Amino acid sequence: MQVVKTIQEVREIVKGWRKEGLSVGLVPTMGFLHEGHQSLIAKSVADNDRTVVSVFVNPIQFGPSEDLEAYPRDLNHDMAAVEAMGGDLIFNPEPSEMYPAHFTTFVDTTETTELLCGARRAGHFRGVCTVVSKLFNIVGPDRAYFGQKDAQQLATVRRFVRDLNFDLEIIACPIVREADGLAKSSRNTYLSAEERRAALILSKSLKLGQTAVENGERDASAIIKIISDSLQTEPLARVDYVEVVDLNNVQRVEAIEGETLVAIAVYIGKTRLIDNFIWK
Amino acid sequence: MQVVKTIQEVREIVKGWRKEGLSVGLVPTMGFLHEGHQSLIAKSVADNDRTVVSVFVNPIQFGPSEDLEAYPRDLNHDMAAVEAMGGDLIFNPEPSEMYPAHFTTFVDTTETTELLCGARRAGHFRGVCTVVSKLFNIVGPDRAYFGQKDAQQLATVRRFVRDLNFDLEIIACPIVREADGLAKSSRNTYLSAEERRAALILSKSLKLGQTAVENGERDASAIIKIISDSLQTEPLARVDYVEVVDLNNVQRVEAIEGETLVAIAVYIGKTRLIDNFIWK
Repeated sequence: MQVVKTIQEVREIVKGWRKEGLSVGLVPTMGFLHEGHQSLIAKSVADNDRTVVSVFVNPIQFGPSEDLEAYPRDLNHDMAAVEAMGGDLIFNPEPSEMYPAHFTTFVDTTETTELLCGARRAGHFRGVCTVVSKLFNIVGPDRAYFGQKDAQQLATVRRFVRDLNFDLEIIACPIVREADGLAKSSRNTYLSAEERRAALILSKSLKLGQTAVENGERDASAIIKIISDSLQTEPLARVDYVEVVDLNNVQRVEAIEGETLVAIAVYIGKTRLIDNFIWK
Repeated sequence: MQVVKTIQEVREIVKGWRKEGLSVGLVPTMGFLHEGHQSLIAKSVADNDRTVVSVFVNPIQFGPSEDLEAYPRDLNHDMAAVEAMGGDLIFNPEPSEMYPAHFTTFVDTTETTELLCGARRAGHFRGVCTVVSKLFNIVGPDRAYFGQKDAQQLATVRRFVRDLNFDLEIIACPIVREADGLAKSSRNTYLSAEERRAALILSKSLKLGQTAVENGERDASAIIKIISDSLQTEPLARVDYVEVVDLNNVQRVEAIEGETLVAIAVYIGKTRLIDNFIWK
């Protein structure tokens, strides 16, 4: 397992693999790898001859009031995690390597980014689309792996990959949870013990909504009410959104019919957490 | 020489070439190929084992009041021209192949697009960056060829290729002119006989500016005045802009020092023509 810092090094290594006819998977991450990331790496290792994990806290996807500086980083931990999962290469560039002077180009996509986190985090998905486009061009993978936890990100990546004709396959992996149900997230490290307990309200409330759907409820506003009412029972929780949308275009639906995403964002203290379930 | 209409066909053909270890050049065009395009094709044929010419009048780079419908098209002529220059493949997609339903992604770059044509044609360069990004991802060329006549387009393509890390080389080719000096352009076909004669004022005025620089003039405003004064001697000409900018970031300069672009846009009747010279 190697760690490289420059675009040129990644390209040379991947070109070497390509000469041997090897397939390549890419797992884009912001590091501080948890079991969610590890499931992506494991899937890539299973699907491809070689796996590249990018570890880059991407400044342009953070808003001015967001947690860029505080975002947790631990490269030694990440190296051990990638090694343990059988990954082959970590790409860990400095921001100046990714964004040189006079960097002025952005990839942006509308529709899938209008609602949910896109409505609240101005420029966030533009930053995501731009850095992921760069990583695709730097690594040139056959497949790239994204977690279903950020379902809007996944829909957005699928959209720009289709629209811009990137010649690769996007693979989605299911949400990985703690034993008690909390979705794995690097931001869980921000939670105090009391907040950690309170954060269970996300998965618990989604489960109530999911059970209602399984029992035949198809009305989106009824599902939203069940989940919102449950979230409001937790004093430390402040609801940011509860939405029922089409999984592919991330636009609101009134009834649960096709592939549907039920997504929530909730502040627990100062920490904003997201979670969701998908109904197909 | 083959003509294909679908992305899948282009990919299969290029992948076949890649398996043979052949290099690939791309010449993106809007068709109605003239000697300017032919010089790009000839350069690509000289540099690469195989050359793809895209022929696509890109709707998203035209403004609502611009000449999308009137833009000249002649695929039979283009096929003969590509064949004659030794090109291997024409990619001639329908707009629906390039822009399927729910197409919502754009590549945009600032700085190089602020002035000149970018200031006058809202969304034009966003449309150019988006379609060229798509063509790069569809064809995956080693090299792509652009004419120096649209110098701002060239600077803009160079910028987004660098920013998004497209793994290819941009090759610029010099302006090709008629015997009397008029820069070759598909839009020259719009000119009446009288306008065709009047259009000579563009190259003639630039020549006066260039001679002044060669004779030691370094003041941008003095060069602009020489060119503007000359353009205004032609009653059929209406000046859109005369600008002196840095060749790389397309920002105004006061003095001609580094690589400098002297660019003009002039209406001859209803037809807008551009021309330029570069000083290094």
